[in-house]
Amino acid sequence: MDKQRTLDEVGEFGLIDILTKNFNTTKSTIKGIGDDCAVLEYSADEYQLVTTDFLLEGIHFDLVYTPLKHIGYKAVVAGISDIYAMNGTPKQIMVSIAVSAKFSVNALEQLYDGIRTACQNYKIELIGGDTSASMTGLAINITAMGTVGKDRITYRSGAKVTDLICVSGDLGGAYAGLQVLQREKAVYNQNKDSQPKLAGYEYVLQRILKPEARFDIVEKLKENNIVPTSMIDITDGLSSELFHICFDSGVGCKIYEERVPINEETGTVCAEFNLEPIIPALHGGEDYELLFTVPLSAYEAIKKIKDVAVIGNVVEKEKGLGMISRSGDFIHIKAQGWNTSEKR
Amino acid sequence: MDKQRTLDEVGEFGLIDILTKNFNTTKSTIKGIGDDCAVLEYSADEYQLVTTDFLLEGIHFDLVYTPLKHIGYKAVVAGISDIYAMNGTPKQIMVSIAVSAKFSVNALEQLYDGIRTACQNYKIELIGGDTSASMTGLAINITAMGTVGKDRITYRSGAKVTDLICVSGDLGGAYAGLQVLQREKAVYNQNKDSQPKLAGYEYVLQRILKPEARFDIVEKLKENNIVPTSMIDITDGLSSELFHICFDSGVGCKIYEERVPINEETGTVCAEFNLEPIIPALHGGEDYELLFTVPLSAYEAIKKIKDVAVIGNVVEKEKGLGMISRSGDFIHIKAQGWNTSEKR
Repeated sequence: MDKQRTLDEVGEFGLIDILTKNFNTTKSTIKGIGDDCAVLEYSADEYQLVTTDFLLEGIHFDLVYTPLKHIGYKAVVAGISDIYAMNGTPKQIMVSIAVSAKFSVNALEQLYDGIRTACQNYKIELIGGDTSASMTGLAINITAMGTVGKDRITYRSGAKVTDLICVSGDLGGAYAGLQVLQREKAVYNQNKDSQPKLAGYEYVLQRILKPEARFDIVEKLKENNIVPTSMIDITDGLSSELFHICFDSGVGCKIYEERVPINEETGTVCAEFNLEPIIPALHGGEDYELLFTVPLSAYEAIKKIKDVAVIGNVVEKEKGLGMISRSGDFIHIKAQGWNTSEKR
Repeated sequence: MDKQRTLDEVGEFGLIDILTKNFNTTKSTIKGIGDDCAVLEYSADEYQLVTTDFLLEGIHFDLVYTPLKHIGYKAVVAGISDIYAMNGTPKQIMVSIAVSAKFSVNALEQLYDGIRTACQNYKIELIGGDTSASMTGLAINITAMGTVGKDRITYRSGAKVTDLICVSGDLGGAYAGLQVLQREKAVYNQNKDSQPKLAGYEYVLQRILKPEARFDIVEKLKENNIVPTSMIDITDGLSSELFHICFDSGVGCKIYEERVPINEETGTVCAEFNLEPIIPALHGGEDYELLFTVPLSAYEAIKKIKDVAVIGNVVEKEKGLGMISRSGDFIHIKAQGWNTSEKR
């Protein structure tokens, strides 16, 4: 054991492997560490899904430009998005908060307003939690629980060669929104009398401040009798999630830059920041869209589902992870998530 | 809504009430916020129990005198103790950690060594979690899950007048151990060449650094066909937990100072610190013992269980919460937990 290793050197995926290598599971645990959720035996027809997420001030959110109500809402969305990513239905959440004395009761009521609004919108229940003091700022932990039909559960590991690679909604918007917020914060820090210029950025700001989890996609897949062969939610960026699916499934992938869905406003903001829109789409993260694969035979059915784009197909492992650029070049995809948080 | 209220003013129980008052539960949730665990429908014979706990550096532990392995062990114990407090059996845990760059991989391996040791000792599984960066030190969140027979589940709310009040093990030891650690830290801060004097304090140090959860008591209760009328684990101190049981059950209590179990070493340490031993026993917390009530008719059966003391009995609500001191005085009990953390 090399005692000199730093966290930067092993990376987050490496760290998880190191820390959890000596843990065993029993047969009541269908799947432990290594997907969006843990999967437990539940009933004759269903598995139970459980997932937990940390959200920390200064890492996952900045109170300078994020209303507490939105933080509460987004914390719930981030938690239940992992349940949808297993093709499941979220049912309950537990919310733990640690707060320093700088927060007023009213501020925390706003946080819980956001949590409650999300619970209502997604029809889930807050069933408990923990409240603690904190030396520094706000920390939130969300544990989300749900169920999934045994015949519908979707892991990261089932993608097969020739499968179609699909993505919901559009990508890169959250990252573009964050650039706008950070720019306005920098302006404000230079001149405390300035007002942030947020008009014209409504879409990308909504993407970063109040994302939604794609329950509608899970519903539509069911209505159209499609069980994806693999699925994951896009929290770290398309490249990172493609990497997870390909690695866990033992396959490669080929996607087409021109097919990666990017909202028009995202494109405009990227131009302002001299950024190729495909970069935040590949590496931005926090879009909470679903990335999934379906058999070729599902092509006609998938085409009918609004807001889903087929961006490429699964190939042999030996072919690696690649993107065909707009100019026809083959580009190797490397995972470059935000790297602040990684699910085990 | 009074926007000026601070967290100190409303207190932690008050805060929980304020934040969670507008959340509703459905029939699949047997018990949401308000006991040691949330209780969910599970199978024909069993409920599922879920609980979540925050442990934060600087609030719940001090890395100056706490080995990381012990922090990992104690984090698991704190989580599953809530499951035992419902008379249940823990099965799985999820562990989320947030760490700043100051931690090495080796340090985190020690933390997970402690988690793994606890998982082995208590026969539970680590099924997942989240790993995140942190701006400041180490934060741990443990979600523990388990099951309990529908005929054995024990809430805080079932205590009845004339019931016997019982406590496992002994109390105040963790608080006494903490005093020793804090004294030695102060000495060390004055003289970095000094060595901590820990000999002779083995018992109280073990109580604060490596507590155990009382699975044996839950087993013994079952073997003796006793279902407690109420139960809670002692995390904030006997007074605080008595308050919870009495408030939730709509009763009062009368305990006897001379019957409150206190270890001899705890008594010696208290004398060193000019502290009446009953004070940490009542208000110290972190002992992770079980406080429970049983019907008078269970007296003979309870007497047979090693390491359980009957310390008093449940009385009418109007009589309040009282302790008969060694000198025969009636003392009103007030809840004075450490107030760093409170379960919802």
